[in-house]
Amino acid sequence: MRDLHTAEELRRAIIDTVGANGGHLASNLGAVELTLAVHKVYDPFRDRIIFDVGHQSYSHKLLTGRAEQFGALRKFGGLSGFTSPRESDADAFISGHASNSISLALGMAKARTLNGDDYAVCCIVGDGALTGGLAYEGLANAGQSGEALVVILNNNGMSISRNVGAIARVLGYAFSGLPYFKAKQRIKALLKKIPGGGTLYRAIHRFKEAAKGALLGGNIFEQLGFRVMGPIDGHNEKELEGFIRLAKSMDVPTLVHVVTQKGRGYAPAVANPGLYHGVSPFDVKTGIAESHAVSSFSESFGAALTSLAAEDKRVCAVTAAMEDGTGLSEFARLYPERFFDVGIAEGHAVTFAGGLAKQGLRPFVALYSTFLQRAFDNVIEDIAILNLTVTLCVDRAGLVPSDGVTHQGIFDVGFLTQIPNMTLAAPANYDELRTLLRESLSRDGPLAIRYPKGAESDVPLTMLTENASVTIVSYGAYSEEPFRALRILEKNGISADFIRLISLKPLDCGEIAKSLAKTDFLIVAEDSSANGSIGQQLVSKLAESGNSPKRVLLMNTGDRFIPQGTVAELRRELGLDAESIAENVGKALC
Amino acid sequence: MRDLHTAEELRRAIIDTVGANGGHLASNLGAVELTLAVHKVYDPFRDRIIFDVGHQSYSHKLLTGRAEQFGALRKFGGLSGFTSPRESDADAFISGHASNSISLALGMAKARTLNGDDYAVCCIVGDGALTGGLAYEGLANAGQSGEALVVILNNNGMSISRNVGAIARVLGYAFSGLPYFKAKQRIKALLKKIPGGGTLYRAIHRFKEAAKGALLGGNIFEQLGFRVMGPIDGHNEKELEGFIRLAKSMDVPTLVHVVTQKGRGYAPAVANPGLYHGVSPFDVKTGIAESHAVSSFSESFGAALTSLAAEDKRVCAVTAAMEDGTGLSEFARLYPERFFDVGIAEGHAVTFAGGLAKQGLRPFVALYSTFLQRAFDNVIEDIAILNLTVTLCVDRAGLVPSDGVTHQGIFDVGFLTQIPNMTLAAPANYDELRTLLRESLSRDGPLAIRYPKGAESDVPLTMLTENASVTIVSYGAYSEEPFRALRILEKNGISADFIRLISLKPLDCGEIAKSLAKTDFLIVAEDSSANGSIGQQLVSKLAESGNSPKRVLLMNTGDRFIPQGTVAELRRELGLDAESIAENVGKALC
Repeated sequence: MRDLHTAEELRRAIIDTVGANGGHLASNLGAVELTLAVHKVYDPFRDRIIFDVGHQSYSHKLLTGRAEQFGALRKFGGLSGFTSPRESDADAFISGHASNSISLALGMAKARTLNGDDYAVCCIVGDGALTGGLAYEGLANAGQSGEALVVILNNNGMSISRNVGAIARVLGYAFSGLPYFKAKQRIKALLKKIPGGGTLYRAIHRFKEAAKGALLGGNIFEQLGFRVMGPIDGHNEKELEGFIRLAKSMDVPTLVHVVTQKGRGYAPAVANPGLYHGVSPFDVKTGIAESHAVSSFSESFGAALTSLAAEDKRVCAVTAAMEDGTGLSEFARLYPERFFDVGIAEGHAVTFAGGLAKQGLRPFVALYSTFLQRAFDNVIEDIAILNLTVTLCVDRAGLVPSDGVTHQGIFDVGFLTQIPNMTLAAPANYDELRTLLRESLSRDGPLAIRYPKGAESDVPLTMLTENASVTIVSYGAYSEEPFRALRILEKNGISADFIRLISLKPLDCGEIAKSLAKTDFLIVAEDSSANGSIGQQLVSKLAESGNSPKRVLLMNTGDRFIPQGTVAELRRELGLDAESIAENVGKALC
Repeated sequence: MRDLHTAEELRRAIIDTVGANGGHLASNLGAVELTLAVHKVYDPFRDRIIFDVGHQSYSHKLLTGRAEQFGALRKFGGLSGFTSPRESDADAFISGHASNSISLALGMAKARTLNGDDYAVCCIVGDGALTGGLAYEGLANAGQSGEALVVILNNNGMSISRNVGAIARVLGYAFSGLPYFKAKQRIKALLKKIPGGGTLYRAIHRFKEAAKGALLGGNIFEQLGFRVMGPIDGHNEKELEGFIRLAKSMDVPTLVHVVTQKGRGYAPAVANPGLYHGVSPFDVKTGIAESHAVSSFSESFGAALTSLAAEDKRVCAVTAAMEDGTGLSEFARLYPERFFDVGIAEGHAVTFAGGLAKQGLRPFVALYSTFLQRAFDNVIEDIAILNLTVTLCVDRAGLVPSDGVTHQGIFDVGFLTQIPNMTLAAPANYDELRTLLRESLSRDGPLAIRYPKGAESDVPLTMLTENASVTIVSYGAYSEEPFRALRILEKNGISADFIRLISLKPLDCGEIAKSLAKTDFLIVAEDSSANGSIGQQLVSKLAESGNSPKRVLLMNTGDRFIPQGTVAELRRELGLDAESIAENVGKALC
């Protein structure tokens, strides 16, 4: 594919590739002219352009020598769906979790100044990302710094689900520039007709001074120390270029407020930008997604919680800009007063739930595993210490496809089991998930339930055989792989006990120790990082009780970050698929 | 002690007790009249009063039946220095980590409304806590909610170190109410004298409408959806009561801006509120602290980093409102352009450092272990994935005295070792700390160095004896306890190998395995939580390599939250002191 230059070419490439591979569509289509303008003003290889949640960065990739590789977007070994410095020097940083770009831009701008360099720094941040507290910390510090840096606010009027929080109102304020000007003109016109208008004008001027410009662009950003420009039509390339060039020439922190339309240039995405935010492969002509009517844990969770809400008025649902993703749309529709989408604000989601729980409600906080990392401290301080009854519904736990390194849910087992008072469970199928959710209503204390993106597995709880020579332990839907390994081993004449855990904390070793008394060989296979894994905890518990098995094989995602790919590809890559497990067990038994 | 009723009585009790026990002085003295007024308006047992960082809650405790226990403030088994629902029903929540109160208040207000209850909810939050992103998330969500709740902003013009970030400027704005009123009066006066004043007044009124009240209290809070009152003199009890009563009667989110003086009523604290923020016991008459010229890791860190900054221009220091606490005052004085106090914004501190590092600087981020929990995700996403060279200087790691359950640094080993690319080291003395800091300048990738509050220990690295029957492993300054246990065991005729680790990740088992080949009995003693501990990781590594020792004893803080006390008391309580270790080893060997 030759280099692309026009908005039309970029849109075509984005629509075709996302249609084929899936990916983020609506936000990328909205940012085409903006990206073209940014590239006219900034040199991506010399200056630093930071994308906040880089799923608006497709045009940027196409404009920086990656058009040819674009077909492998989000595929194993292919281009990342986010920015990545490992992929190109034009990518200033990675960008998987929202709201970090202003802090990064400030760091880079400070480094520029301290090093005596003269590159320019800008970041492009969506209005959704502004609902995150980290963005506010960044804005406050950047505003105070006086550093020359440009924040380009790409305001498309909605975050992933819908725009949440008072920030939407604040952005609305910026538009009030126009009525202000009109009122001012009317006053001036009146003054001309009135004797003594001069004195009055001065009084009004003082009045205006007292207002300290809190009117014209008088918004939260200006109060935080930014010079504010806009709103600007985000599809007028020339106007964009002019304003961004002007902003770049300022020697103070400057915010350029750009209004874009999500899905611009592709009718189905304009009509339903939420649906076309992150999509599976679809037919470009019709806009219809390839049918795959597979069920999912998220749906199952949403349905189960909705029916519990019907029975129990204490049930509340809290999510952070992931109403659809976590399966809560129906809940939100039926019980809007008990549904809370707090924006991209995971910390607040958990602490808020602590407040609900302390006063007798039963909040269920549905977050993706990777985003729950942002609320680690809130879970400790605002839930666990007081042993409050909050259920954390940890979606996208374990390996996730396509999104890659920034989104893998491989740490939750480690950081959640560290927390005193916490109970952690891993259902392998929807029935178990439903049962856990229902039981959570009649128990006390914090509970976390982890489940992956995708569908349930059909894996039994325990299968013991008399002549087993190895004990295989696993948990969750992932356990389908070690369970399949069991079958392969059988064919090779190796018998194994299989134990699937539901409760990861507390961790009961009874059954495992019994099996080990026979096999003396423990294998734990799991889709979690090595340190903090259930394997480590199990081995320790056994050792402390004097039941160390002779041989131990821990299979997990290791001590490494995990790239993008399909889940099957990643399992193979990590030696966590049935074949690799069987092979390794076979080798160990030789 | 009888019940206290007046500001003077409260101040006397606070000064005397903090003088004897140490604690938070200046902020409590500043909040006396405010607390009295809040208690006149709200019923602490029926309504919900939430303190943000409850170290302003001493008056509240004295007014709610705890005057008699007040002498045991911050002591083992005594009253907490923060609020605690376990201590009294008058304490609506715990409050150790800043910025969470608005989220909690919203949760409680929502629960009130959903449950059909009619209690009132207010929170008291310092201006320092507003520098945290969580407060912003809470404000944005509360502002949008329309829930009746009152946020009382106790603005004493400084957070722990000094007020940081543009938020200070924003608070300044609120004071502009007065000039606004004066200008308005002047305009009105002029209009009366002018023919056609009526029409003009309406035009001006429209002008004002266009301004949407962005003037009068036209600040960030109003933009986020709050009705704003104030600023109010925070030492005028009557005025405070009036405004708070008015705020309580509102049916929308309302912010009362109160201006207080830190240290009010105690001259030495007024003169130097920073020094009297958190204090050791001191002589009430002179204000002079009991001399204990003990050195500390924090001081040693600050001195070492300051001298590295002299040699290497890339060295930067980042902290989150803990300039003094982390020992960085001298660094800040000598290298202000390379010193960044970002406010109570740990997430930003780490991400900002990621930006600095990406552009070639060498940032050292000094945070307390318990507060680093708030930046867990930032360490993963904005440091570790790109393998950036940022040094995390983890102060107050392990058990901390007095502050209690919300401040124990017992999780960092677990959550930091989970992170790929991370290196973790635990020096036991200042020399090792200095060496680690120096070496960090000539290595790449993220490094965390953990050290406790307090002084170094004199503990050797390795001590092996031929006839050892047990292998004791430990790390950090805490290792003084197992090392002392060694001496006790010796007296009882038990020989032990002693291995002190500096590197916790990577974790080298070579020497330990060698010793175990002889003793077959592993003991790991550490001041970290059980899950994620080095003990667990060590046992797993040994098991995986087929070197499981026959006996294992893991001594750590367990799977529990740790209360307040002196470090010696806590070690005893947890069985982590030398005597308990020796006793347990002795028992195990019987």
